[in-house]
Amino acid sequence: MPNVSSPSLVQPLGVLRLESGADLEVEAAYEIYGRISPAGDNAVLVCHALTGSARAAGEQGWWDPLIGPGAAIDTNRYAVICSNILASCYGTTGPRSVDPATGRSYGGRFPTVTVGDMVAVQHALVQKLGVRSLACVTGGSLGGLQVLEWAARYPEMARSIMPVATNLAHAAWTIAFNECARQAIRNDPGYLDGDYIHRGTTPHRGLALARMIAMISYRSAQSFGERFGRQVTPPGEEDSGRFEVESYLHYQGGKLVERFDANAYMRITEAMDAYDVGGARGGAQAALAPFRGPALVMGIDSDILYPVWQQQEIVEVLKANGNAVSYREIHSEHGHDAFLMEWAQLDRHIREFMAALPA
Amino acid sequence: MPNVSSPSLVQPLGVLRLESGADLEVEAAYEIYGRISPAGDNAVLVCHALTGSARAAGEQGWWDPLIGPGAAIDTNRYAVICSNILASCYGTTGPRSVDPATGRSYGGRFPTVTVGDMVAVQHALVQKLGVRSLACVTGGSLGGLQVLEWAARYPEMARSIMPVATNLAHAAWTIAFNECARQAIRNDPGYLDGDYIHRGTTPHRGLALARMIAMISYRSAQSFGERFGRQVTPPGEEDSGRFEVESYLHYQGGKLVERFDANAYMRITEAMDAYDVGGARGGAQAALAPFRGPALVMGIDSDILYPVWQQQEIVEVLKANGNAVSYREIHSEHGHDAFLMEWAQLDRHIREFMAALPA
Repeated sequence: MPNVSSPSLVQPLGVLRLESGADLEVEAAYEIYGRISPAGDNAVLVCHALTGSARAAGEQGWWDPLIGPGAAIDTNRYAVICSNILASCYGTTGPRSVDPATGRSYGGRFPTVTVGDMVAVQHALVQKLGVRSLACVTGGSLGGLQVLEWAARYPEMARSIMPVATNLAHAAWTIAFNECARQAIRNDPGYLDGDYIHRGTTPHRGLALARMIAMISYRSAQSFGERFGRQVTPPGEEDSGRFEVESYLHYQGGKLVERFDANAYMRITEAMDAYDVGGARGGAQAALAPFRGPALVMGIDSDILYPVWQQQEIVEVLKANGNAVSYREIHSEHGHDAFLMEWAQLDRHIREFMAALPA
Repeated sequence: MPNVSSPSLVQPLGVLRLESGADLEVEAAYEIYGRISPAGDNAVLVCHALTGSARAAGEQGWWDPLIGPGAAIDTNRYAVICSNILASCYGTTGPRSVDPATGRSYGGRFPTVTVGDMVAVQHALVQKLGVRSLACVTGGSLGGLQVLEWAARYPEMARSIMPVATNLAHAAWTIAFNECARQAIRNDPGYLDGDYIHRGTTPHRGLALARMIAMISYRSAQSFGERFGRQVTPPGEEDSGRFEVESYLHYQGGKLVERFDANAYMRITEAMDAYDVGGARGGAQAALAPFRGPALVMGIDSDILYPVWQQQEIVEVLKANGNAVSYREIHSEHGHDAFLMEWAQLDRHIREFMAALPA
């Protein structure tokens, strides 16, 4: 059964009460690889990062090498579900969606959401799909925050977890990068406090700069050095910068502008920064105590955005709670983005972990 | 003799031909601590970083704990000279200076300058001051680039060097941070391609964001975590961000706007990024071969902007050239800025090195 790349499916979920108290009518876009068992107990939920989509596998799938028949997450055995997160712009309800109260896009009026809200949407979705419990919940970066929230919020449903390159609570450092990105968007005169859709302007320069800043945080000095060094741009292309690394950043910024929404970028990064698994639960250890399953925690040695000591904190909390937890470090020069690149290492560690899961 | 804090002195230096071929009438602002010997052989040149000034010692001097009577750089023995760099805005000729050809500020028309030009201005200045050779040239970050340029350009004058937290050539990674900062300035509708002085606009939001981005690169995940954690801003101050780390970044951005010029920021970062000591000299080893003196190279273990392997490259080049070179690593959680903070370690290493210099 090859991975088939097709438009995401969409599931209406009715009105959801958000953590803020607001009510929001929600539909979720999702993809599914493999078949859900009649008992509803063989699903693996894969959670995507900031600008990702439900397209986890198949053509251009962001974790495609790890998902499929015979792959580390074996679709012959598991049904892999990935849904676009709340407040994004790939099919799940977000700032570009039409507000039924006005008949127009929410735009800047889209409510504040939390990682808890994102996970509540996933929970409603998988229940609709006939899932009774999840064999595993996994994801990297913001995806990893969702994994931890699953363990805290629905410990009876998540039988195991694999958080990757993430932290128990967004740290000052990760908040700082996000705030610079948001300020780049706010500074764009086309942003208009989020009202650009209705007023016909575009905060493209701001969103592109936000992405440029983020791209630095996703990589490492070494990977930039080896890839670009001090190569200069070819004659005639200096508009995008004198050095190749500058052209690369501008190119990446431009690419995101074509595929992402500035209000979605604002809402999702705000949710990330607000995230603290133990914040309203008496601390991380108490928050995760109800989760009794095994965990594989992965970090990346060159990750400057979510440094490995933050994953070691997750390990310590789970150990203190008595979970069966293992830690595997990805060795890479690529920085944070290695969770989307180091396939051989990810494959090995995930395979080892999933092979040991109870049937 | 206490360090006296007074306005910088200014020395006219006539017309300088820049590396670009342009001619520029230059004056240099400088400070001097201690007395130049009749033989003109006891001066130490201290080179400042991106937004620094000639005020190296005295009140608010950026290296004050290291400079003074009996200090690591002992003004009883040495005359310490620090001059504001070319293209800056603290007294040396820069974009805010009046162009004699027009009677108005250069603004965005200020010519492109190089680290070589900055060093050529320092060379002209110290000669005017009666200096025949420099006992040592030192500085961190951009100051360190100047140190290396001194060794390559005037090896007969620089008897020893102490480059700190710097690299032989600006790396793709450091260029990337600078390009994001420049793009923040360019994106500001008040910047007007540098013509804001004449058109009465201010690129304050852009310059502030440039500084916010830079502040991340100057620190570390650990230092931000220990200082700010997830502390929220007090009620009534949320305009500057929900979290203390956001308020801090906005505050730092606002502070720079009060004291620095956006065109100066553009020109100086362009000069940094263009810097490659060996670029037009057949490589770093050939470039530094004429320099025969001893060197102390220092790096900071938590520096993400100029990681320690870049200082180790400097050490390797000097070793291969047969220089007496030592490497000392500053242990700090503070990241790049530790070269302006870890006084005890800096003091110890500099003292050890200078004690061994020939009289």
